This record gives sequence, C-alpha cells and structure tokens, in this order.
Amino acid sequence: MIPDRPVIAIIGAGAIGGYYGARLAQHGHDVHFLLRSDYASVKANGLRIFSRDGDFELPASSLHVYDDVRKMPRADLVIICLKATSNHLLPELITPLLHESTALLTLQNGLGNEELLAQLFGQERVIGGLAFVCINRGESGVIHHMDHGQIRIGELGRPITPRLQRISEMFNSSRVRCEMLEDLRVGRWTKLVWNIPFNGLGTIMNAETDKLIATDAGTGLVREIMTEVVAGACACGVNLPKGLVEQQIERTRSMGAYRTSMQIDRQLGRPIEVEAIFGEPLKAASKAGVEMPLVRTIYRMLQVLSGA
Amino acid sequence: MIPDRPVIAIIGAGAIGGYYGARLAQHGHDVHFLLRSDYASVKANGLRIFSRDGDFELPASSLHVYDDVRKMPRADLVIICLKATSNHLLPELITPLLHESTALLTLQNGLGNEELLAQLFGQERVIGGLAFVCINRGESGVIHHMDHGQIRIGELGRPITPRLQRISEMFNSSRVRCEMLEDLRVGRWTKLVWNIPFNGLGTIMNAETDKLIATDAGTGLVREIMTEVVAGACACGVNLPKGLVEQQIERTRSMGAYRTSMQIDRQLGRPIEVEAIFGEPLKAASKAGVEMPLVRTIYRMLQVLSGA
Repeated sequence: MIPDRPVIAIIGAGAIGGYYGARLAQHGHDVHFLLRSDYASVKANGLRIFSRDGDFELPASSLHVYDDVRKMPRADLVIICLKATSNHLLPELITPLLHESTALLTLQNGLGNEELLAQLFGQERVIGGLAFVCINRGESGVIHHMDHGQIRIGELGRPITPRLQRISEMFNSSRVRCEMLEDLRVGRWTKLVWNIPFNGLGTIMNAETDKLIATDAGTGLVREIMTEVVAGACACGVNLPKGLVEQQIERTRSMGAYRTSMQIDRQLGRPIEVEAIFGEPLKAASKAGVEMPLVRTIYRMLQVLSGA
Repeated sequence: MIPDRPVIAIIGAGAIGGYYGARLAQHGHDVHFLLRSDYASVKANGLRIFSRDGDFELPASSLHVYDDVRKMPRADLVIICLKATSNHLLPELITPLLHESTALLTLQNGLGNEELLAQLFGQERVIGGLAFVCINRGESGVIHHMDHGQIRIGELGRPITPRLQRISEMFNSSRVRCEMLEDLRVGRWTKLVWNIPFNGLGTIMNAETDKLIATDAGTGLVREIMTEVVAGACACGVNLPKGLVEQQIERTRSMGAYRTSMQIDRQLGRPIEVEAIFGEPLKAASKAGVEMPLVRTIYRMLQVLSGA
C-alpha cells in the first residue's frame, strides 16, 4: 500500500537518484535524499537540474537532505539508485527506512538486484525499475539531463499490481514517462541486449556507440553478441520479441556518438558494474544450459580492466 | 651470395629500420636508407641514436639517404622494415633494387610477409627476421632504443644457409645480437604466442602488459589465448616447446609496465597490423582445421578499432 502522500526516500543520489527524486519533489512529493559527497553543497545550495524537459531548481530550504540514513523518516517507498558495485551497503542503508509495507524500487542496472533485495528484505517489497536516460552529474548539486528519461517498472515475480499503478502515476504526473511491465524479466533482458554489447565493447575499447557500428565488422560483432543475449534470455524462459536485435541496432544508429555510462565510469576511474550487467546474466544463462561465448570474453576483459 | 662488402638497402626507415641500419652503418657497412617524412631532416642533420647499448651519432656527411628508390643503387641485401599495412607498396619499392641474387630480409611483424615477398620476387631471395626490441622514434632523425635489440633470422622454407650465416655475422659484429633459426616458422609462431595476447588485448583495452597479468582473471585470459595460438601453430605443423606459455608469462612479468608498439600505434592514430598479426594466423590455423575463438574475437575487435 502506498499512501496518498507517501514518504519517498532516495538512496544513492547520484545523477539518476538526484534527477528522479528532484522531479518528484518538484511536483509536490515528499522526497528525502540520502547524500554522501554532495551533502554539504546540496544542503547549502539545493539542486539545479538542466534538463531537456525543462530546467528547474530546488532551493535548499525546500529539500530534505541527510548525510545519515538513521536521521531519515521511515519511508513508504525507497528508490534505490546505488551502483550495483555498492550493493554490500544495502542492509545498513535500507533497514532503518523500513516499516511493515515499505516498497523498494530499484533503478539499478543489470540482473540480480531485485533478487538480492528480496533475499534481504522480502520479495513482496520489491519492484524493479529500468531507467532509459542520458544523464550526468556536473559540479556538486548540478545534474545535466541530456536525453530520454523514461522508466519502466515491474513487480518482482508477479504482474501489475495497484501499488505499481500508483507509483507509475506518481512518475507520469511528475514529468517522468513511466511504463509498467507485465514481466519485469522481459524488461531486464531487453535492456541487457543493448547494454552488453554497447557498454561492454564501448568500455573495453573506449569507443562510442557510433564507432562500434560504423563498419560491417562492428555491426556484425554487435549483432552476434546481441543474439547470444537473446538466446540466454530464451534459455531463462524470457522470450524477447522477434526483430529486437535489428531494431536496437537501428535505434542506436539514430543516436549518433554516445558514450555509455560504463565507458564514462572507466574514463573517470570509477567502479564499473561488471557483475550485474555481465556476470549475473552469464550465470543465469549458464545455469539454464546456454553459454554466451562472446559475452563471456567481454566479461573476462572487463574483469581485467576492473582489477577483479 | 652476399659479397664481402654488400650494398644494403633499408626500406621503411622508421625506428626499426633506422636503428638496425644505423648499427650496420656505424660498423662500416655500406648502408642506403630510403626515407619518407624524415628525409630532409636526416639529409641535413644525420641520425642520432640513444641506445641502452651505447648512444651514437651518424653525421649527415657519412650517410646515404634517398627520398626515391629509383635513385638508389641495386642492393645485395634489402632489409624491409615497412609496416605490414603498407605491403601494397612492396612491388614499387623493391623492384628497382633487385639484381639477380639480391636477398630480401623482412623484419616485419606477423605471418604472411615472407610468402608475399616470395610470390612477388621469388622464394630463393627471401629471409625472415624477427626483431625483439623496445624502440621508439623521437623527433625527426632521433631514435630511442630502450631495451633488448636481438634479432632472429631464418630462411624461408629451408634450413640455415651460408648466406644466412653471413648476414648473422654482419649483425653480430655490429652490436646486434643475431640468432639463426633452423625453422623460421617456429620463430614466427613463438613471437605470435606473445604478440597476440599482449598486442591484442593491450591495444583493445589500452592497457600495458603489467595490467593485463596483474590479476588471476587477466593471467588466465592471457594463458588461454596463448594456448590457442600454440594449438594453431601445432595444427600448422609447428611444434612449439613445452612450457612456452608459462615462460612467456613469467618473462612478461619481469618486464614491468610495457606498452606494445601496437598500443602506441592506436594511441597515435597510426594504422595497426591487424591482418599480419591476427588475420593471417587465424587463416592459417583455420585452414589446418583449428579455430582460435578468443583470437578471433580479439581480431574482430581490432577490425572495429581500425575501421576495417
């Protein structure tokens, strides 16, 4: 149950958490941000969002920001935007926020995040979300939203619920287009079909998306990787729509030169989400009897890069 | 037949050609350099070599340098140091230098260079050579020789000849350690066992050698790639010594952080020798019935990088 004016906690207020939290706050929702490195600056100066859907500012006086989760109110909805590489922090970050029916919405990348939350806090709490957004942090307290922005949400292991509809409405009335997924896994694997070749190759080779598909050799490689992921999904019981691979390649062509967040993470020396986006899908497919050899090679190269 | 004081032509006088040619000239040999971008500068100022085996200088007055192969004398020995990516220039660069028994020594990387020379100019002329050297060009006319420097030479398709001994002696008496190979192919494939993982992964991932083997994941990946190359060699009838893989990994560990020439080429936007070092070995092994799947994936990634 999500009450009429839910208490919303945003955990991991980087670009993603900052942006979606700010959109909800801008539209009158009761949003509480847990911040780390940006705490002092946001506490003093608020948040500034430069967005292709309209710039806006949230003055410090209007914001609830915290540097310690134990100072925060219990939440009706916790939106988790941590990088998956920080998932070991989830117990200490989430537990103080829970009441009996607190819902947990993870906007994290890759596979395994919902399952981990379910294991830690109970499956009935967990909602998965996928963000399709080009976004970056600027200086402290400044977010640049360059393109897209829609999210897709789905219940873990069950179809659409009233709770999911309520959350979807909250986003849709806060200038964030939100779709509901009948089957969260279809959403997750569909996104992996794109993320695995473009985040993977782009990060390993330090190449933007347009370079990866500029030649027949590159397009062929991307296509073959995507086809492996589709086969992996199928083995896991997730049937992706026919034509998805070509459709994703064409959509990518229309995007021009795009640097994935993982490529940027590598360039800035930040941790990269190797396990969530590569390791977990490989594990799942392998368990279901399907190997994805190109994906595995990419995974191994990323392990080398991340010093794993 | 190599006469007592042979006319030696150096074709492709980058770092490799410049260094070995300069060593021969320093020791009284009759060396003629074909230069392109460095012609004017070397013609005016000569060559300066900063070498771990002793710095030296060749004044302009002592050098034979040319900007046009048609101005050069016919040669008894042509040393070919072009990048393999410029092999389409071989007919026009070599033909004017030939007399009846001109020997051609290629110090180029990878497979296929000797065979191409044999096809163009006759097998009996062709000698293959491998350079093991850490070397860079500095400003025009300046070469930095950082480490190693030995070469290995072998006849194409036959064992050691008097001609090969003569050339080997020339190098050995010119401060270049030179070994003769009973079987050139063993030398070529042994070098590929190192070049394929380290030039390949290093270029794709923009990582130095030490980073590639800093973790178990990385060492495992390098080992598996090397093992594929050993199997490819074996299929081609080239039996490499047992223990080669571990020996090469250990030797690389002792080298510290090393940037391969291919990694440098990519960084500087120069052509990379994808076909000679990856495409040709893949073709040879495949023809002999052995696939090298990791090598093929690296090859495909390099094709993407080089826009092939």
